[in-house]
Amino acid sequence: MIIVLKPDITRKQETAVLQEIRKLGYRPHVMRGVARTVIGAIGDERTHQSLETLTTWPQVEQVMPVQKRYKLVSREAHKATSTIAVRGNIIGGRKLQVMAGPCSVETEAQLMSVAHAVKKAGATILRGGAYKPRTSPYEFQGLGEKGLKLLAKARRETGLAVITELLSEAHTDLVAEYTDIIQIGARNAQNFQLLIAAAKTGKPILLKRGLSMRIEEWLLAGEYVLSNGNANLLFCERGIRTFETYTRNTLDLAAVPIIKAESHCPIVIDPSQGAGRADLVSSMCKGAVAMGADALLIEVHPNPTAAWSDGPQQLSLDLFARLMEELRPFIAAAGRE
Amino acid sequence: MIIVLKPDITRKQETAVLQEIRKLGYRPHVMRGVARTVIGAIGDERTHQSLETLTTWPQVEQVMPVQKRYKLVSREAHKATSTIAVRGNIIGGRKLQVMAGPCSVETEAQLMSVAHAVKKAGATILRGGAYKPRTSPYEFQGLGEKGLKLLAKARRETGLAVITELLSEAHTDLVAEYTDIIQIGARNAQNFQLLIAAAKTGKPILLKRGLSMRIEEWLLAGEYVLSNGNANLLFCERGIRTFETYTRNTLDLAAVPIIKAESHCPIVIDPSQGAGRADLVSSMCKGAVAMGADALLIEVHPNPTAAWSDGPQQLSLDLFARLMEELRPFIAAAGRE
Amino acid sequence: MIIVLKPDITRKQETAVLQEIRKLGYRPHVMRGVARTVIGAIGDERTHQSLETLTTWPQVEQVMPVQKRYKLVSREAHKATSTIAVRGNIIGGRKLQVMAGPCSVETEAQLMSVAHAVKKAGATILRGGAYKPRTSPYEFQGLGEKGLKLLAKARRETGLAVITELLSEAHTDLVAEYTDIIQIGARNAQNFQLLIAAAKTGKPILLKRGLSMRIEEWLLAGEYVLSNGNANLLFCERGIRTFETYTRNTLDLAAVPIIKAESHCPIVIDPSQGAGRADLVSSMCKGAVAMGADALLIEVHPNPTAAWSDGPQQLSLDLFARLMEELRPFIAAAGRE
Amino acid sequence: MIIVLKPDITRKQETAVLQEIRKLGYRPHVMRGVARTVIGAIGDERTHQSLETLTTWPQVEQVMPVQKRYKLVSREAHKATSTIAVRGNIIGGRKLQVMAGPCSVETEAQLMSVAHAVKKAGATILRGGAYKPRTSPYEFQGLGEKGLKLLAKARRETGLAVITELLSEAHTDLVAEYTDIIQIGARNAQNFQLLIAAAKTGKPILLKRGLSMRIEEWLLAGEYVLSNGNANLLFCERGIRTFETYTRNTLDLAAVPIIKAESHCPIVIDPSQGAGRADLVSSMCKGAVAMGADALLIEVHPNPTAAWSDGPQQLSLDLFARLMEELRPFIAAAGRE
Repeated sequence: MIIVLKPDITRKQETAVLQEIRKLGYRPHVMRGVARTVIGAIGDERTHQSLETLTTWPQVEQVMPVQKRYKLVSREAHKATSTIAVRGNIIGGRKLQVMAGPCSVETEAQLMSVAHAVKKAGATILRGGAYKPRTSPYEFQGLGEKGLKLLAKARRETGLAVITELLSEAHTDLVAEYTDIIQIGARNAQNFQLLIAAAKTGKPILLKRGLSMRIEEWLLAGEYVLSNGNANLLFCERGIRTFETYTRNTLDLAAVPIIKAESHCPIVIDPSQGAGRADLVSSMCKGAVAMGADALLIEVHPNPTAAWSDGPQQLSLDLFARLMEELRPFIAAAGRE
Repeated sequence: MIIVLKPDITRKQETAVLQEIRKLGYRPHVMRGVARTVIGAIGDERTHQSLETLTTWPQVEQVMPVQKRYKLVSREAHKATSTIAVRGNIIGGRKLQVMAGPCSVETEAQLMSVAHAVKKAGATILRGGAYKPRTSPYEFQGLGEKGLKLLAKARRETGLAVITELLSEAHTDLVAEYTDIIQIGARNAQNFQLLIAAAKTGKPILLKRGLSMRIEEWLLAGEYVLSNGNANLLFCERGIRTFETYTRNTLDLAAVPIIKAESHCPIVIDPSQGAGRADLVSSMCKGAVAMGADALLIEVHPNPTAAWSDGPQQLSLDLFARLMEELRPFIAAAGRE
Repeated sequence: MIIVLKPDITRKQETAVLQEIRKLGYRPHVMRGVARTVIGAIGDERTHQSLETLTTWPQVEQVMPVQKRYKLVSREAHKATSTIAVRGNIIGGRKLQVMAGPCSVETEAQLMSVAHAVKKAGATILRGGAYKPRTSPYEFQGLGEKGLKLLAKARRETGLAVITELLSEAHTDLVAEYTDIIQIGARNAQNFQLLIAAAKTGKPILLKRGLSMRIEEWLLAGEYVLSNGNANLLFCERGIRTFETYTRNTLDLAAVPIIKAESHCPIVIDPSQGAGRADLVSSMCKGAVAMGADALLIEVHPNPTAAWSDGPQQLSLDLFARLMEELRPFIAAAGRE
Repeated sequence: MIIVLKPDITRKQETAVLQEIRKLGYRPHVMRGVARTVIGAIGDERTHQSLETLTTWPQVEQVMPVQKRYKLVSREAHKATSTIAVRGNIIGGRKLQVMAGPCSVETEAQLMSVAHAVKKAGATILRGGAYKPRTSPYEFQGLGEKGLKLLAKARRETGLAVITELLSEAHTDLVAEYTDIIQIGARNAQNFQLLIAAAKTGKPILLKRGLSMRIEEWLLAGEYVLSNGNANLLFCERGIRTFETYTRNTLDLAAVPIIKAESHCPIVIDPSQGAGRADLVSSMCKGAVAMGADALLIEVHPNPTAAWSDGPQQLSLDLFARLMEELRPFIAAAGRE
């Protein structure tokens, strides 16, 4: 920690700070500058108590942490890029993986028609919500276990792997039984008990970024997964909340190079949530691929107008097939397959 | 719903929209304006499917909902202001209630010293975290059940009511057994399964606003509580996330008059989380009281520098006592006790 | 400046950083911590070149400035609170000053009726826009010089001082001739050439906070005024832009205690722009007064529905008179007149 | 305009709204729905007064505009994509244009070395700030006219076109004399007098998006250019302000498809300002190209560490040359040259 003292303080005030630093287990190192005196507090910030409360002392101007707070997810700790294998599909490797499917699982007919169509177009993983976190209690909340069973059936029929959202600790075993990847949604991205429960299943975890999560907080939420014994973590950017209202969220594509720099875990982009508008999905997929995303998560529905949730952001089967074609040159340009 | 059509579309395109509106169960009503044609889709938006997917149709410019999505929390549904009684203390009535105590329950000595001090200064409800949601897995996660027991002991000794946070469905019964008010934290404000579990205990629920929650979303999260049979809901503003970095969050004090206008439920202000800095708490409490807040939630610690969590935002016992004195004229000016 | 090095770098990489620091005129001071090596670069950050570019070096983790960048506006430089006298009214003293009037000057009848009414209710300064910055070129852009003349006439008739907005360097002399306080609007808060021109008139400057301005940036914009020889600066908080859409902006009332802590200049609150809704103005004024604001800036119109700009946020004459009554106990509670 | 009435209002209250609508020149059209009565106010919203003040009436729930407020910049008004020719280079056509150069013009040697290097690497337009808007008055403010002359010299030597920022109406003629494209910076994006002055020079205008500007506001600022007789407008996305602190701004790449859908004007991406970090520029350029940007605006400096402004975001000459190579396959994939 670095502690910056205010100018014009008394020697006694300075001594009090030094004593407090020692009391909390750090070794103080004083550095007298031109305009300010700065104290380096030497000691491991991850095992010692925070010194940030010193900011409230009248003689202290600011307190600045020096160490990164995340460890296991960091590239510093694990130089090589991690890959995650899901039913033979490697995420984070040379091949760009596409996860596609409806926002919500609605009916067998709906799911099967999407599953076959996205497989044919080149997707390798089927997405579909069985439990849905909805802003209003009066909206469709998902089919629950019945939806999980339909996903399993679609997997048997198509060979696609399955990703679905877990939104309650109480469903952990059930969801883990049916899915290949557990998705943690944006609203639960700092629901740490849910993260721990999910991590302990051993299944790969796709962790969406919360609507107002800083990159550092997202990495630390990921740290909950790895520190609970599960190394199969995928980060998924799906748009953050800003003042802009044209799009539902603002897709922060800078997350791709940033996660790649800070972490060894793969990065997935969800342009459907990111834009909230089907007409922007294609362009955003191209950007994501060009910037180096490891996988895409795309919502596809046989009839978006009649969808039971989030119709405006779902692609029709045709549009999805066309998108997969259009992505080819960008995938090649990015040196991917 | 109101559907605005683009100019220069064909009659056939317009007819297709009218058919889709009818298919989804609404009755269309066409209104030809100077620059645009607008269609009113008549039907209950809360029971019919959303028409928002029409925004993705090439002939449609925008779709605008007309009804409010929340019902039970709204003042429209319940004109009189609701009050909530907790061990004889009425929240939402004439008396301003103060909930005070440490961020985390740390030790018996710490908790008892705070409990007696805040009671003496005029608080009626003791706050204290037994389960703590922490950004990093390496930070103190709370004493758990031991913390709950200490809170119960402090209640016996002081007669203060108790509020503590619930952060896992798995702890619901345990927390409900010990606490008088269940707090749902900002990070779990849209953890709907947790809200439902908490609601079903029948205990009063204090629902903090999520860091990036619009007022409407907050009211809808509250709707999950009331629609699950629990009318004892308190809204608590604790700061939203903005670009400003001087404060930890931006306390949106406009929430006080807005919640009072839109809802019948009481509104509580948490200036400690809102500012993240003890030196701003006093001023923010005065503002909150003047604007009509029903209660304050304030973090108080016997020795903030040594606090196990969030030291910078906790008041010392002395500062808290002084604050309670300073608030008196503002409470009187607001016509409260 | 503090430079934090990455772990596991070579001695040669460290030496290169030390050399660069010396080359840019600072004296490096190395501090070896447990997990990181930190270098203090000793020298005046305000006269030396920034070292922030070092963040792009592969061996550097972060660069942290130590000094505050503002000087003349800071309370550090000028411990006593500044007051500003405008036609005998002291802003920043014991008396809370109220600036009130229409968003735009429209007609003589409109302005005179407002001027007399706000004076009667207790306002001391008349606001009114003669030049209006409007989001769309098709909206009313203000009466220009004619509006300035009407303001001068209202001043003669009522004795109220006048505040009006300057939005073009080309109008500086003209506006300064007619007004007592020059207002710099939120959209021009970082239009530094305009700030310099306004400062040089010697008139008091009311500097609104930009919609996305951090406190530090706002103070630095104020520094442009003081460093151009004008000490009569007022900061005015008028709401920042956030994700919330219920209000037009989010009024950041924490700006009151923060500006008072960081600067010696008075702080004014504009609740009309802050909320964008007349029904919230009264509550926000109470909060602002309780928190210690030195003055309020309130939009008042004889017939808001017919206003040529920003009708929804303007109070009618009756509502304004009632508000002034309601504020009395809060002004007294705040120890003001 | 659409006016939604509250439920349970009296007939008299409804009549008052209808009368006011008529008084303001619209023709009301009543539509009785299941839960609400909605009134369509028929009339041109761009020539009639706004009805938004009705939101403050007790019987009105909301007022919703129906028309788009921008006209000349809209694709509706001008279906074909506009192109802008600058010294023989077409922006908005098949060829991706690259504008590159230093943040600030510092010395002749610096500028010439960059100009030759970026030309060799494939750029066609030279950027460089002669007048610099700086957050602090103590930072380098640009060389002024001397900088403009150096840019002109670089143009003569290399044949590159020139873009430079205009930040004061007082400099308009001077800047227009030397530059090929006038840049309006983010801080002045709603400095409408400057926009008008710039438009009247007839030079192409590159309008950066303000830090907290919604897309609609940006388009309306552009409308100031076109409605003042200048059709040569370029929109430039350079990052918006959000809560994220890892990057200086959040580059909103969705602006590319959105501007292309809403407007006929070309869209330029500035990844240097957008990220504020040189290490992210390459990835962001790839994304921008893939998403369909018409041009890139990139900061390049022979020695970023010694730059007089914004060193951290400037590429070295080598890195720029490498970037131009790396972009080739993405430019091809996007069907550009």
